[in-house]
Parts: sequence; structure tokens; C-alpha cells
Amino acid sequence: MAPTGPRSGDAIFASVERVNAELFTLTYGATVRQLLTDLEEVEEVNKQLDQMGYNIGIRLIDEFLAKSNVSRCVDFKETAEVIAKVGFKMFLGINATVTNWDADGTCCNIILEDNPLVDFVELPDTCQGLYYCNILSGVIRGALEMVSMKTEVTWLRDVLRGDDAFELQVKLLKQVPEEYPYKDDE
Amino acid sequence: MAPTGPRSGDAIFASVERVNAELFTLTYGATVRQLLTDLEEVEEVNKQLDQMGYNIGIRLIDEFLAKSNVSRCVDFKETAEVIAKVGFKMFLGINATVTNWDADGTCCNIILEDNPLVDFVELPDTCQGLYYCNILSGVIRGALEMVSMKTEVTWLRDVLRGDDAFELQVKLLKQVPEEYPYKDDE
Repeated sequence: MAPTGPRSGDAIFASVERVNAELFTLTYGATVRQLLTDLEEVEEVNKQLDQMGYNIGIRLIDEFLAKSNVSRCVDFKETAEVIAKVGFKMFLGINATVTNWDADGTCCNIILEDNPLVDFVELPDTCQGLYYCNILSGVIRGALEMVSMKTEVTWLRDVLRGDDAFELQVKLLKQVPEEYPYKDDE
Repeated sequence: MAPTGPRSGDAIFASVERVNAELFTLTYGATVRQLLTDLEEVEEVNKQLDQMGYNIGIRLIDEFLAKSNVSRCVDFKETAEVIAKVGFKMFLGINATVTNWDADGTCCNIILEDNPLVDFVELPDTCQGLYYCNILSGVIRGALEMVSMKTEVTWLRDVLRGDDAFELQVKLLKQVPEEYPYKDDE
């Protein structure tokens, strides 16, 4: 079979199995609510959501690589673009944009143009400090670790906290040289 | 605008916002896993999944009525058919069949032809007794309560427990007479 090259996020999203977004949104909301009840501390919920996302990410990367025809990215810059343009589209059906690269190409921001996780969500005052979408940052962290990139992913802007957009910072901490020999000076 | 009548589950499913099914499956799996960690008792997890489903169902019914053009069902028999043919298709993209009606039309079984919740799922021995998909029974119970039907929804067969299909029993306990005056002898 001849290689066909990477597929667009739109094409992949159209071809994969899907479920109703509202069901997903409400299921996620019920999960967060349950964690808040069980764990009580908002900080602890943030941590658990991130960990859940990480566990999802380390498995979701397989689906991503299998369906997207994306091969190893040349560098972290290309990786970030693929996450924004293919990953978000393929899994959530949304567009995202990479901005604000630092000089050495190891840190950037990703701005989400939409976010199905937060439809109908309003946080009560008791949930100040909650990073409601922390599962997403965990997914990215987990998925990247499976392709040998250790990253730190944090929320810079969050509409549920009063900001005007959802914006993530993705910072490359380390690339494992055996698998990605391009940058072994770290 | 002229009334258009009920839409098919397929047509609705094709038109609603959707997300990647594997993301949904893995997110649900991470939720169950988290509940098992936090609550420890399998029986308690079953209860919480059912309660989460109930909370989802009481909200999802709005989306269902808005998108499906289904008006009030004549009786419980019609309701069960609509859940199987329109509901499951619209939210999970799957087909389901109603069987095994009792004589007075207040109890039936619903067999799922597929179940995206359990893709890649295997239960460890420590999870015997877990009703992994209890969120689904909770959703049905919650949604029906919002249209004045108090029901009991239980799993009769579960592939994760070694059965050859997923089968739910839906039992009508009570219809609130004010809203559904058809059966006020209960």
C-alpha cells in the first residue's frame, strides 16, 4: 500500500466513530461534580482531572497515530501544530491555533476556538480555583509522553474563570534522546 | 412552521454535534477507574454511576425532545420503542431492540446491538460485581422521570460479566397522573 501522507483533522473526524457531544459534555460534567463531592478539595480535583487526562492521553495517542497517518514530527514546533490542527479536530471536532512561540521553540500557547466540555457549565462560587478542563491538559501531556516528549501543560486563560478564551501553555521539558535524537543537548 | 413529525434516530445523530467515540469511551473508563479508587466498594461505585446517569438523564431529555420532534408518547410501550430506536441512536449512534413485554405493558427488556462504553474494557477480578455501564441505566431512569414516568432500570445481561449481550430491564413503577392521565389506577 502506498503511503498516503497525513490526513486532515476534518477528514479524520468525519470518518471516525462518534457520539453525541451533549452526552459527552454532561458525562464529563457529572464526573467533575462527583470528584468535587468525593474529594472535597478543589486542588485535589484539579490533580485528579489531570491524572485522568494523562491516562486517557497515553492510550489515545495510538488512535491518533493509527487514524491520522501522521509520522514522527521533525521537532516540537511541528508537534504542536499537529496537536492544534489535527488532534483537537479529530477528537473534539474543534479548531485550535498555536501562538506565542519562545525563541528556542520549546514553549508555545494553544488557543481553542471552541470547547464542547464547557457547554451549559457555570461554576458556583465554591469552585473558585477549579480548572474544569484539566483533563484536556492531562491528555496532551500523556499523549506527548508516549512519543518521548516530557511536557508541562497549564491553563493560561479559562472562560469559566472569566477570561475571554481557552488558552493552554505547552512547555517541552525533555525529549528522550533514544527515540528522538534531534535534540540531545537537554 | 408546520409540524414535521418525529425524526429518525439516524437523521438526528447525523445532524447533532458529536465528539470522537474513543475519547468518550476512554473518558468514561477513566471516570469509573477514579470512582473505584475513591470509593473502594464496587457496590458504592454502581450506585454513584447510576446517580451520575440520573443527573445526566434529567438534562439530556431536553436535548432529546428538542432535537427529535417526539411528542408525548401514548403509553409506556411507545416510550420504550422511542428510547430504543431514537434515543440510543441519537446519543450513542447504536441500535437497540425492545423485547419481552409483560402482559400489562409495564415491563420490557432493551437489548443493545453495540455498546461504545465498553470498547477496550476488561474488568479485573477485583471488579466482580461492578455494573460498568450503570450510567446508561441511570440516564434512562432520569430522563423518564422528567416525563413523569418513575421506572426501575436494571441490567439483565452484561458482556463484561460474561453474557453474550447487553440487556436492560425497564420497569414502569408509576406514572404521575397530572401529566399522564392515561393510567391512574396505580
